Amino acid sequence: STKIAYSNRGMSLEEDINVTNSYYLETNRAVIHKKPTPIQIVNVNYPKRSAAVITEAYFKQASTTDYNGIYQGKHIDFEAKETKNKTSFPLANIHEHQIRHMNAILKHGGISFFIIRFKEHDETYLYPGEKIVYFWEQQNNDGRKSVPYTSIQKDGVLIPFKYQARIDYLSVVDQLYF
Amino acid sequence: STKIAYSNRGMSLEEDINVTNSYYLETNRAVIHKKPTPIQIVNVNYPKRSAAVITEAYFKQASTTDYNGIYQGKHIDFEAKETKNKTSFPLANIHEHQIRHMNAILKHGGISFFIIRFKEHDETYLYPGEKIVYFWEQQNNDGRKSVPYTSIQKDGVLIPFKYQARIDYLSVVDQLYF
Ligand SMILES: [Mg+2]
Ligand SMILES: [Mg+2]
Repeated sequence: STKIAYSNRGMSLEEDINVTNSYYLETNRAVIHKKPTPIQIVNVNYPKRSAAVITEAYFKQASTTDYNGIYQGKHIDFEAKETKNKTSFPLANIHEHQIRHMNAILKHGGISFFIIRFKEHDETYLYPGEKIVYFWEQQNNDGRKSVPYTSIQKDGVLIPFKYQARIDYLSVVDQLYF
Repeated sequence: STKIAYSNRGMSLEEDINVTNSYYLETNRAVIHKKPTPIQIVNVNYPKRSAAVITEAYFKQASTTDYNGIYQGKHIDFEAKETKNKTSFPLANIHEHQIRHMNAILKHGGISFFIIRFKEHDETYLYPGEKIVYFWEQQNNDGRKSVPYTSIQKDGVLIPFKYQARIDYLSVVDQLYF
Protein backbone atom coordinates (compact mmCIF):
# COMPACT_ATOMS: atom_id res chain seq x y z
CA SER A 1 0.00 0.00 0.00
CA THR A 2 1.07 3.61 -0.50
CA LYS A 3 0.96 4.20 3.24
CA ILE A 4 4.01 1.99 3.74
CA ALA A 5 6.00 4.00 1.23
CA TYR A 6 5.72 7.13 3.37
CA SER A 7 5.94 5.64 6.82
CA ASN A 8 8.70 4.04 8.77
CA ARG A 9 6.34 1.39 10.08
CA GLY A 10 6.07 -1.92 8.30
CA MET A 11 9.62 -2.10 7.00
CA SER A 12 12.39 -3.75 8.95
CA LEU A 13 15.49 -1.74 9.77
CA GLU A 14 17.45 -3.94 7.37
CA GLU A 15 15.00 -3.25 4.53
CA ASP A 16 15.17 0.49 5.23
CA ILE A 17 18.97 0.43 5.16
CA ASN A 18 19.05 -1.62 1.96
CA VAL A 19 16.74 0.87 0.23
CA THR A 20 18.91 3.70 1.52
CA ASN A 21 22.11 2.04 0.26
CA SER A 22 20.58 1.53 -3.19
CA TYR A 23 19.74 5.21 -3.27
CA TYR A 24 23.27 6.16 -2.16
CA LEU A 25 24.69 3.90 -4.89
CA GLU A 26 22.44 5.26 -7.65
CA THR A 27 23.23 8.85 -6.71
CA ASN A 28 27.00 8.14 -6.45
CA ARG A 29 27.06 9.18 -2.81
CA ALA A 30 28.66 5.99 -1.44
CA VAL A 31 29.23 2.30 -2.19
CA ILE A 32 27.89 0.38 0.79
CA HIS A 33 26.45 -3.14 0.66
CA LYS A 34 24.93 -5.67 3.01
CA LYS A 35 27.20 -8.68 3.34
CA PRO A 36 25.41 -11.90 2.39
CA THR A 37 24.32 -14.19 5.24
CA PRO A 38 27.07 -16.77 5.79
CA ILE A 39 25.85 -20.29 5.04
CA GLN A 40 27.50 -23.67 5.54
CA ILE A 41 26.56 -25.70 2.46
CA VAL A 42 26.40 -29.46 3.04
CA ASN A 43 24.64 -30.84 -0.02
CA VAL A 44 23.98 -29.57 -3.54
CA ASN A 45 22.06 -31.29 -6.33
CA TYR A 46 22.89 -30.58 -9.96
CA PRO A 47 19.78 -31.45 -11.96
CA LYS A 48 20.17 -31.68 -15.75
CA ARG A 49 19.08 -28.55 -17.60
CA SER A 50 18.34 -26.51 -14.48
CA ALA A 51 20.06 -24.56 -11.75
CA ALA A 52 22.00 -26.21 -8.92
CA VAL A 53 19.82 -26.70 -5.83
CA ILE A 54 21.24 -26.51 -2.32
CA THR A 55 19.32 -29.21 -0.43
CA GLU A 56 21.11 -29.06 2.92
CA ALA A 57 22.72 -26.04 4.49
CA TYR A 58 23.01 -24.31 7.86
CA PHE A 59 23.27 -20.73 9.07
CA LYS A 60 26.76 -19.85 10.24
CA GLN A 61 27.71 -17.27 12.84
CA ALA A 62 28.75 -14.07 11.09
CA SER A 63 32.36 -13.22 11.86
CA THR A 64 32.05 -9.53 11.09
CA THR A 65 29.23 -6.97 10.83
CA ASP A 66 26.20 -6.50 8.56
CA TYR A 67 27.37 -3.74 6.23
CA ASN A 68 30.51 -2.22 4.84
CA GLY A 69 31.78 -0.07 2.02
CA ILE A 70 33.35 3.24 1.10
CA TYR A 71 32.23 6.84 1.65
CA GLN A 72 34.30 9.95 0.90
CA GLY A 73 37.37 7.74 0.56
CA LYS A 74 36.85 6.28 4.05
CA HIS A 75 36.10 2.70 4.97
CA ILE A 76 32.68 2.38 6.63
CA ASP A 77 31.62 -0.68 8.63
CA PHE A 78 28.49 -1.07 10.72
CA GLU A 79 26.00 -3.34 12.37
CA ALA A 80 22.22 -2.80 12.40
CA LYS A 81 20.09 -3.89 15.36
CA GLU A 82 16.48 -3.49 16.37
CA THR A 83 15.22 -3.77 19.91
CA LYS A 84 11.79 -3.76 21.53
CA ASN A 85 13.35 -2.53 24.77
CA LYS A 86 12.47 1.00 25.79
CA THR A 87 15.12 1.89 28.35
CA SER A 88 18.27 0.17 27.09
CA PHE A 89 19.95 -1.76 24.29
CA PRO A 90 20.87 -5.25 25.60
CA LEU A 91 24.47 -6.30 24.92
CA ALA A 92 23.23 -9.88 24.47
CA ASN A 93 22.34 -8.73 20.94
CA ILE A 94 26.06 -8.53 20.13
CA HIS A 95 28.65 -11.26 19.65
CA GLU A 96 32.19 -10.97 20.94
CA HIS A 97 33.71 -11.44 17.47
CA GLN A 98 31.66 -8.44 16.25
CA ILE A 99 33.22 -6.29 18.96
CA ARG A 100 36.68 -7.60 18.05
CA HIS A 101 35.96 -6.82 14.41
CA MET A 102 34.76 -3.26 15.14
CA ASN A 103 37.78 -2.65 17.34
CA ALA A 104 40.08 -3.76 14.52
CA ILE A 105 38.30 -1.51 11.98
CA LEU A 106 38.63 1.47 14.34
CA LYS A 107 42.34 0.78 14.93
CA HIS A 108 42.98 0.65 11.18
CA GLY A 109 41.38 4.08 10.67
CA GLY A 110 37.89 3.07 9.56
CA ILE A 111 34.53 4.48 10.63
CA SER A 112 32.51 1.96 12.61
CA PHE A 113 29.17 2.28 14.35
CA PHE A 114 25.87 0.68 15.22
CA ILE A 115 22.54 1.67 13.79
CA ILE A 116 20.09 0.92 16.59
CA ARG A 117 16.34 1.09 16.19
CA PHE A 118 14.14 1.41 19.27
CA LYS A 119 10.95 0.03 17.82
CA GLU A 120 8.72 1.20 20.66
CA HIS A 121 10.02 4.76 20.37
CA ASP A 122 10.04 4.60 16.56
CA GLU A 123 13.55 6.08 16.69
CA THR A 124 16.73 5.02 14.92
CA TYR A 125 20.15 6.15 16.21
CA LEU A 126 23.68 6.10 14.91
CA TYR A 127 25.81 5.13 17.90
CA PRO A 128 29.63 5.22 17.62
CA GLY A 129 31.54 1.92 17.70
CA GLU A 130 33.89 3.23 20.38
CA LYS A 131 30.96 3.62 22.79
CA ILE A 132 29.64 0.12 22.18
CA VAL A 133 33.15 -1.28 22.70
CA TYR A 134 33.38 0.68 25.95
CA PHE A 135 30.11 -0.74 27.34
CA TRP A 136 31.06 -4.22 26.16
CA GLU A 137 34.39 -4.10 28.02
CA GLN A 138 32.79 -2.57 31.10
CA GLN A 139 30.45 -5.57 31.46
CA ASN A 140 33.04 -7.51 33.42
CA ASN A 141 33.66 -4.60 35.77
CA ASP A 142 30.24 -3.16 36.57
CA GLY A 143 28.09 -6.08 35.50
CA ARG A 144 25.84 -3.87 33.38
CA LYS A 145 24.51 -5.97 30.49
CA SER A 146 23.04 -3.18 28.39
CA VAL A 147 23.63 0.30 27.01
CA PRO A 148 21.20 2.79 28.60
CA TYR A 149 18.78 4.53 26.24
CA THR A 150 19.92 7.81 27.80
CA SER A 151 23.52 7.13 26.70
CA ILE A 152 22.36 6.41 23.17
CA GLN A 153 20.38 9.66 23.18
CA LYS A 154 23.41 11.56 24.51
CA ASP A 155 26.31 10.07 22.51
CA GLY A 156 24.37 8.85 19.52
CA VAL A 157 22.57 10.90 16.89
CA LEU A 158 18.98 10.41 15.80
CA ILE A 159 18.92 9.45 12.11
CA PRO A 160 16.46 11.49 10.05
CA PHE A 161 13.82 9.55 8.18
CA LYS A 162 13.53 10.67 4.56
CA TYR A 163 11.60 9.64 1.50
CA GLN A 164 14.44 8.22 -0.66
CA ALA A 165 17.33 7.85 1.77
CA ARG A 166 14.88 6.33 4.24
CA ILE A 167 17.44 6.04 7.01
CA ASP A 168 19.80 8.82 5.98
CA TYR A 169 22.70 7.71 8.18
CA LEU A 170 25.34 9.37 5.98
CA SER A 171 23.99 12.78 6.98
CA VAL A 172 24.88 11.78 10.56
CA VAL A 173 28.26 10.37 9.46
CA ASP A 174 28.97 13.79 7.88
CA GLN A 175 28.17 15.45 11.18
CA LEU A 176 30.21 13.09 13.39
CA TYR A 177 33.23 12.11 11.29
CA PHE A 178 33.91 14.78 8.64
CA SER B 1 51.19 -33.83 3.43
CA THR B 2 53.97 -31.43 4.41
CA LYS B 3 54.77 -30.88 0.75
CA ILE B 4 51.53 -28.96 0.29
CA ALA B 5 52.43 -26.62 3.15
CA TYR B 6 55.47 -25.37 1.28
CA SER B 7 54.19 -25.43 -2.26
CA ASN B 8 51.68 -23.34 -4.11
CA ARG B 9 50.23 -26.44 -5.80
CA GLY B 10 47.21 -28.17 -4.32
CA MET B 11 45.58 -25.11 -2.79
CA SER B 12 43.09 -23.00 -4.68
CA LEU B 13 43.75 -19.30 -5.07
CA GLU B 14 40.81 -18.61 -2.77
CA GLU B 15 42.21 -20.89 -0.05
CA ASP B 16 45.61 -19.22 -0.36
CA ILE B 17 44.05 -15.76 -0.03
CA ASN B 18 41.93 -16.81 2.94
CA VAL B 19 45.01 -18.14 4.76
CA THR B 20 46.82 -14.92 3.92
CA ASN B 21 43.96 -12.76 5.21
CA SER B 22 43.88 -14.72 8.48
CA TYR B 23 47.57 -14.08 8.88
CA TYR B 24 47.12 -10.37 8.13
CA LEU B 25 44.31 -10.21 10.70
CA GLU B 26 46.26 -12.05 13.43
CA THR B 27 49.29 -9.83 12.92
CA ASN B 28 47.17 -6.62 12.83
CA ARG B 29 48.33 -5.81 9.34
CA ALA B 30 44.87 -5.42 7.76
CA VAL B 31 41.22 -6.40 8.17
CA ILE B 32 40.18 -8.05 4.91
CA HIS B 33 37.52 -10.76 4.59
CA LYS B 34 35.97 -12.90 1.89
CA LYS B 35 32.34 -11.95 1.41
CA PRO B 36 30.01 -14.90 1.91
CA THR B 37 28.55 -16.51 -1.23
CA PRO B 38 25.13 -14.95 -1.86
CA ILE B 39 22.35 -17.51 -1.54
CA GLN B 40 18.62 -17.23 -2.25
CA ILE B 41 16.93 -19.18 0.54
CA VAL B 42 13.56 -20.72 -0.41
CA ASN B 43 12.80 -23.16 2.38
CA VAL B 44 13.98 -23.63 5.96
CA ASN B 45 12.99 -26.35 8.42
CA TYR B 46 13.06 -25.69 12.17
CA PRO B 47 13.36 -29.07 13.84
CA LYS B 48 12.77 -29.20 17.60
CA ARG B 49 15.92 -29.19 19.69
CA SER B 50 18.29 -28.75 16.75
CA ALA B 51 19.58 -26.15 14.34
CA ALA B 52 17.50 -24.71 11.50
CA VAL B 53 18.10 -26.59 8.23
CA ILE B 54 17.95 -24.86 4.87
CA THR B 55 16.35 -27.46 2.58
CA GLU B 56 16.02 -25.44 -0.61
CA ALA B 57 18.26 -22.63 -1.76
CA TYR B 58 19.94 -21.36 -4.91
CA PHE B 59 23.19 -19.65 -5.74
CA LYS B 60 22.73 -15.98 -6.60
CA GLN B 61 24.89 -13.86 -8.87
CA ALA B 62 27.32 -11.83 -6.75
CA SER B 63 26.71 -8.11 -7.17
CA THR B 64 30.17 -7.04 -6.04
CA THR B 65 33.60 -8.66 -5.72
CA ASP B 66 35.08 -11.47 -3.61
CA TYR B 67 36.99 -9.57 -0.94
CA ASN B 68 37.06 -6.24 0.81
CA GLY B 69 38.33 -4.55 3.92
CA ILE B 70 40.69 -1.91 5.27
CA TYR B 71 44.46 -1.49 5.04
CA GLN B 72 46.43 1.53 6.24
CA GLY B 73 43.17 3.47 6.54
CA LYS B 74 42.29 2.77 2.89
CA HIS B 75 39.34 0.80 1.57
CA ILE B 76 40.53 -2.29 -0.35
CA ASP B 77 38.29 -4.24 -2.71
CA PHE B 78 39.29 -7.05 -5.04
CA GLU B 79 38.31 -10.03 -7.09
CA ALA B 80 40.30 -13.29 -7.33
CA LYS B 81 40.33 -15.35 -10.51
CA GLU B 82 42.20 -18.39 -11.73
CA THR B 83 42.69 -19.30 -15.37
CA LYS B 84 44.17 -22.29 -17.21
CA ASN B 85 44.88 -20.04 -20.20
CA LYS B 86 48.55 -19.37 -20.89
CA THR B 87 48.48 -16.35 -23.16
CA SER B 88 45.58 -14.27 -21.87
CA PHE B 89 42.93 -13.74 -19.18
CA PRO B 90 39.46 -14.12 -20.76
CA LEU B 91 37.04 -11.30 -19.95
CA ALA B 92 34.21 -13.86 -19.98
CA ASN B 93 35.40 -14.59 -16.40
CA ILE B 94 34.06 -11.19 -15.31
CA HIS B 95 30.50 -9.94 -14.95
CA GLU B 96 29.44 -6.43 -15.96
CA HIS B 97 28.21 -5.59 -12.44
CA GLN B 98 31.67 -6.44 -11.06
CA ILE B 99 33.20 -3.89 -13.45
CA ARG B 100 30.59 -1.32 -12.44
CA HIS B 101 31.34 -2.05 -8.78
CA MET B 102 35.13 -1.68 -9.22
CA ASN B 103 34.63 1.54 -11.15
CA ALA B 104 32.52 2.94 -8.30
CA ILE B 105 35.10 1.92 -5.69
CA LEU B 106 37.88 3.60 -7.68
CA LYS B 107 35.80 6.79 -8.10
CA HIS B 108 35.19 6.95 -4.34
CA GLY B 109 38.92 6.75 -3.60
CA GLY B 110 39.29 3.06 -2.84
CA ILE B 111 41.97 0.64 -3.97
CA SER B 112 40.60 -1.99 -6.33
CA PHE B 113 42.34 -4.75 -8.27
CA PHE B 114 42.22 -8.30 -9.53
CA ILE B 115 44.36 -11.11 -8.23
CA ILE B 116 44.83 -13.36 -11.26
CA ARG B 117 46.45 -16.78 -11.10
CA PHE B 118 47.79 -18.35 -14.27
CA LYS B 119 47.71 -21.96 -13.20
CA GLU B 120 49.86 -23.26 -16.06
CA HIS B 121 52.58 -20.70 -15.32
CA ASP B 122 52.18 -21.16 -11.55
CA GLU B 123 52.14 -17.35 -11.27
CA THR B 124 49.80 -15.01 -9.42
CA TYR B 125 49.57 -11.33 -10.33
CA LEU B 126 48.04 -8.25 -8.81
CA TYR B 127 46.50 -6.36 -11.75
CA PRO B 128 45.07 -2.85 -11.18
CA GLY B 129 41.31 -2.39 -11.47
CA GLU B 130 41.74 0.56 -13.83
CA LYS B 131 43.42 -1.72 -16.38
CA ILE B 132 40.69 -4.35 -16.23
CA VAL B 133 38.07 -1.63 -16.64
CA TYR B 134 39.99 -0.32 -19.65
CA PHE B 135 40.06 -3.72 -21.40
CA TRP B 136 36.43 -4.31 -20.52
CA GLU B 137 35.34 -1.03 -22.11
CA GLN B 138 37.58 -1.59 -25.14
CA GLN B 139 35.77 -4.84 -25.97
CA ASN B 140 33.09 -3.02 -27.95
CA ASN B 141 35.70 -1.07 -29.93
CA ASP B 142 38.40 -3.57 -30.81
CA GLY B 143 36.49 -6.78 -30.18
CA ARG B 144 39.28 -8.22 -28.01
CA LYS B 145 37.70 -10.56 -25.45
CA SER B 146 40.69 -11.04 -23.17
CA VAL B 147 43.56 -9.29 -21.41
CA PRO B 148 46.90 -10.39 -22.91
CA TYR B 149 49.28 -12.18 -20.55
CA THR B 150 51.95 -9.71 -21.68
CA SER B 151 49.84 -6.78 -20.41
CA ILE B 152 49.40 -8.48 -17.06
CA GLN B 153 53.17 -9.03 -16.88
CA LYS B 154 53.79 -5.40 -17.81
CA ASP B 155 51.15 -3.52 -15.77
CA GLY B 156 50.59 -6.09 -13.05
CA VAL B 157 53.01 -7.21 -10.35
CA LEU B 158 53.90 -10.81 -9.58
CA ILE B 159 52.80 -11.59 -6.02
CA PRO B 160 55.50 -13.29 -3.94
CA PHE B 161 54.64 -16.68 -2.47
CA LYS B 162 55.55 -16.87 1.23
CA TYR B 163 55.17 -19.35 4.01
CA GLN B 164 52.62 -17.52 6.20
CA ALA B 165 51.30 -14.76 3.98
CA ARG B 166 51.02 -17.35 1.19
CA ILE B 167 49.92 -14.80 -1.41
CA ASP B 168 51.48 -11.68 0.06
CA TYR B 169 49.46 -9.23 -2.02
CA LEU B 170 49.78 -6.38 0.50
CA SER B 171 53.52 -6.20 -0.24
CA VAL B 172 52.47 -5.42 -3.82
CA VAL B 173 49.79 -2.96 -2.64
CA ASP B 174 52.54 -1.16 -0.67
CA GLN B 175 54.57 -0.92 -3.84
CA LEU B 176 51.77 0.28 -6.13
CA TYR B 177 49.55 2.45 -3.93
CA PHE B 178 51.55 3.85 -1.00
MG1 LIG C 1 22.17 -6.97 12.35
MG1 LIG D 1 36.52 -15.00 -7.71
